[in-house]
Parts: sequence; C-alpha cells; structure tokens
Amino acid sequence: MAMEMRLTLRLDMGGEHALGVGKVRLMELIEESGSISRAAKEMGMSYRRAWLLVNDLNQRFGTPLVETQRGGGGGGGAALSETGRDVVTLYRRMEKACLEANGQAMEELAALTAR
Amino acid sequence: MAMEMRLTLRLDMGGEHALGVGKVRLMELIEESGSISRAAKEMGMSYRRAWLLVNDLNQRFGTPLVETQRGGGGGGGAALSETGRDVVTLYRRMEKACLEANGQAMEELAALTAR
Repeated sequence: MAMEMRLTLRLDMGGEHALGVGKVRLMELIEESGSISRAAKEMGMSYRRAWLLVNDLNQRFGTPLVETQRGGGGGGGAALSETGRDVVTLYRRMEKACLEANGQAMEELAALTAR
Repeated sequence: MAMEMRLTLRLDMGGEHALGVGKVRLMELIEESGSISRAAKEMGMSYRRAWLLVNDLNQRFGTPLVETQRGGGGGGGAALSETGRDVVTLYRRMEKACLEANGQAMEELAALTAR
C-alpha cells in the first residue's frame, strides 16, 4: 500500500500566535465564500472558533487580515485584506517550496514504514 | 523589533497519526537520556503522555522506533532503534531544507506585520 503522507508547515510567531494550514484554509474559504460563517461551516467549526482564529491573526499582524464589511454577528460579509491575501500566498508558496525540496526525503521516510 | 518566527513541519501519515517536532524532540531526548521518563520530564509532559506518543510512532511505522530495554514502568532504559534514528535524521534534514528554501519568504512574511 502506498503511504498517505501530507506535509504541512507551522509558523510560530511569538507568544501563543501561530500560522498553520488550518488558519490559511479558513482565510481561503472566507475569500471564496465572502463570509466567516460559511467558511466556518465548510470547515466543520463553530462561528465562534472561526472568529477567534481570525481575531488572533489580526492581532498578531497588527493589521486586519480579514475585514468584515457589513451586518453584525454571523451575517455580515467578510473578505481578505491585501495583507491577508499576501499572507495566504506566501504560506502556500512556502509549502510548495518545502515539498519540492523534500520529495526524496518523504519517499525515504515512507520507505521506513513496515507497511 | 525583529519578529520571532519559527518554522516547524508536520507530516500527517494517515488516520490520526502524525509526525511533528514534538515527537521528534521527544525521540532525541530519549536517545540523549536513555529514558522515556527523563525525556518526558525534560519536555514537561507526563510519563503516560510520552509513552502514548512513543506507542503511536511504533504503531504507525509498524516497527519500534523506541525500544525499551529493561525494567518495568518508568524505570527501564530506552533507546532509539536504527529506524528511530533514521526518522529523526530525516525529519531534521527536511526541516533544514525547508528553512533554506524559505528564508526569503519568511522575511517577506515578517515584513507584513505592522510591528
């Protein structure tokens, strides 16, 4: 059986702040759906959890990565700021570069499993 | 202020199994100290948690990465198997290659923070 293996990156950014594939995917879904609540639903998480993740990102970067546009609660529209889009692009570029640099090592790792 | 940023890798390996810096560091400390309980203490985790992490690795790879050598409970000696040493070496090699491929992207990411 070919081994399933998936590589993801985590960037610890001081204190308890971290940027990983979960927050990046949430940002991508917010951009696609125009809504924090729809993005949260898509990821199977509560609106409150999604909002806390977005708030953590906004705080860490000192500028909003996700901007809410109108309405209150879960009903308002949301979109990525220019900085938010840049963060997503950089993360995905880093992930790709890391995968490209490590294709052989991942095969070697898979070969170490007995099945 | 220069931004603190630390890049780590996570390899999802099917099911709930994953290899990340926590398990790799635990393995390194087991090799250094010759003991699961000393390694657990060094990482501020319980012996039980360390043992569960080791057991998860052993199960996923289908061969022991950590071998306990004598005694029972927390008192016995422990060491990495050859496969265990190979897994640690590969993980650290992948981390280094990923960092080398992404130095510039990490600087760009840091530059996106307002402080």
